[in-house]
Amino acid sequence: MASIRDVAKKANVGPATVSRVLNNSGYVSEETREKIENAMTELNYIPNELARNLFHKKTGIIAVLVPSVANPFFAEFVECIESELYTYGYKTMLCNTVKEGNAELEYLDMLNRHIVDGVITGVHSLDVEEYKQIHKPIVALDRYLSENIPVVAVNHKKGGELAAEELIYCGCKSVLHFCGSKAVESPYHNRHSEFERIMKKNGIKVHSYELEWNRFDADYYEKVIKDIFSNPLEVDGVFGVDQIAIRFLNEAKRRKISVPEEIKIVAYDGTFVTGLTEPRLTVVAQPIDQLARQSAELISQLVNGKTCKNKQVLLDVELHVGNTTRNL
Amino acid sequence: MASIRDVAKKANVGPATVSRVLNNSGYVSEETREKIENAMTELNYIPNELARNLFHKKTGIIAVLVPSVANPFFAEFVECIESELYTYGYKTMLCNTVKEGNAELEYLDMLNRHIVDGVITGVHSLDVEEYKQIHKPIVALDRYLSENIPVVAVNHKKGGELAAEELIYCGCKSVLHFCGSKAVESPYHNRHSEFERIMKKNGIKVHSYELEWNRFDADYYEKVIKDIFSNPLEVDGVFGVDQIAIRFLNEAKRRKISVPEEIKIVAYDGTFVTGLTEPRLTVVAQPIDQLARQSAELISQLVNGKTCKNKQVLLDVELHVGNTTRNL
Repeated sequence: MASIRDVAKKANVGPATVSRVLNNSGYVSEETREKIENAMTELNYIPNELARNLFHKKTGIIAVLVPSVANPFFAEFVECIESELYTYGYKTMLCNTVKEGNAELEYLDMLNRHIVDGVITGVHSLDVEEYKQIHKPIVALDRYLSENIPVVAVNHKKGGELAAEELIYCGCKSVLHFCGSKAVESPYHNRHSEFERIMKKNGIKVHSYELEWNRFDADYYEKVIKDIFSNPLEVDGVFGVDQIAIRFLNEAKRRKISVPEEIKIVAYDGTFVTGLTEPRLTVVAQPIDQLARQSAELISQLVNGKTCKNKQVLLDVELHVGNTTRNL
Repeated sequence: MASIRDVAKKANVGPATVSRVLNNSGYVSEETREKIENAMTELNYIPNELARNLFHKKTGIIAVLVPSVANPFFAEFVECIESELYTYGYKTMLCNTVKEGNAELEYLDMLNRHIVDGVITGVHSLDVEEYKQIHKPIVALDRYLSENIPVVAVNHKKGGELAAEELIYCGCKSVLHFCGSKAVESPYHNRHSEFERIMKKNGIKVHSYELEWNRFDADYYEKVIKDIFSNPLEVDGVFGVDQIAIRFLNEAKRRKISVPEEIKIVAYDGTFVTGLTEPRLTVVAQPIDQLARQSAELISQLVNGKTCKNKQVLLDVELHVGNTTRNL
């Protein structure tokens, strides 16, 4: 296998010059660069990174799996996680799994094929069994996969509690509650059960509407809103994820239903889109930057051979009171 | 170098079983899998993908550089490009370049270090000279870099024209025009110059407001809106990118300025956030899915050794009339 010295000798330059070309640092004339590159080709010199990867069996790449990066929650998460991984020296491979066929499985297989060193998964499509068979570094966002895979999530129970208390405080008697799909096991169900528990305890009627699994597109959200408004609304409060809350608010405005006087709205997630409405939404906000920070820290530990058995990271949520529950 | 056959012999299984483990396909008992993995470790067997990459000097990875994936335009672009690249058999490495230090240069260097096979760049931070020195597959989104680097962009000139004509049709006499930074050379300036040319030709006053370069955060947008409303508004029309248009609309609502009666608003880009307002925004929409499709096709051609000298792809924009220019 040709070495840097062989390349330098063939190109009639010093090894330091070859190194500068390899690392693209410092000045090298175009002519010299070409000579060196030709020497590399002739000697079939193995480029730096690939050879290094081969030696260490590491690629320095972490795959981040999300259903759809166009969804604001995942857009913000991916933005933060890319920055965090960058500070750890990792590159981010982005994998959107809402595709035809089972892209999640194919992406996970990159671990076995040594394309990536670790996976951070924010998707809920594969059967848990598939994950149990992979003994490689995986960190899960908001999902229980196996006891060997650490989970990073917010305290959804607290989130449900904060939303319930705000709507109770504002005098709601009958509320519409948009729930995530019950088809998958996730910590997020805690917010639904806690919300409904507190409401019922306080004698408040809860109408539940279960959202379809893995649907984040505008068409679907519009269909849900149309569906809701196709029957007479008999609620004075609404609790749902950002885009549902925003679209509900807009439809209420179109129908001249005044918010917050006639109906109060609390959004869940608190991504940047909730800053784009007038009136400003009351939100239960997830600390997306912290979710990313913790996920990056855990995957870095796992890649470096540390174990985090049964590890669960639970982060705090916050209520930000806006004008959709109170006239501030 | 150990082969699959060596591994199979040592593990006392058939080569097909080793292959199943390598490709993670078909059933292999946990015990056998362990035996095979141990044999691989002992023989220092080079895993599939890395060895294949080494041989082909290809990694199957394309880097996509954007300033910030949390920005809806780039979120949608990245969503689409990841899907498109996936259909070409490529994985997507996501690179956000709005960071401390010059991440763009470091990411580009991945080409030299053989970490990625090609780069699609949607960022405008590096000096053009840096790009001219890289003779590797690069496709630029909305920026002229060198004659060897193909550019994919929309027909911004047409975009400026459509916005101008809509505001003229709706009777505007004096308009506020938010422009992108003039610090970089980009096809997007064509929309600004065409917009202003048509307005001036029609005797309409244009107040230009130049946005800072590479700023996509909510705080900055809020500052701009505050800045604008700190003086008496003497305009009856506004033209600016989605998030500026939305925030302007919201501030107008807060101040009881009626839209579209007193002031008309046209947004540029038409990302999903423009579907989250009430009234619905009039937008000049970029075909983000087509930008992604063309970029993926070009980078695939370049990676496969084809040249696209002087290639410029120009895609059409469309006006979608909403309720911020007319009472529909």
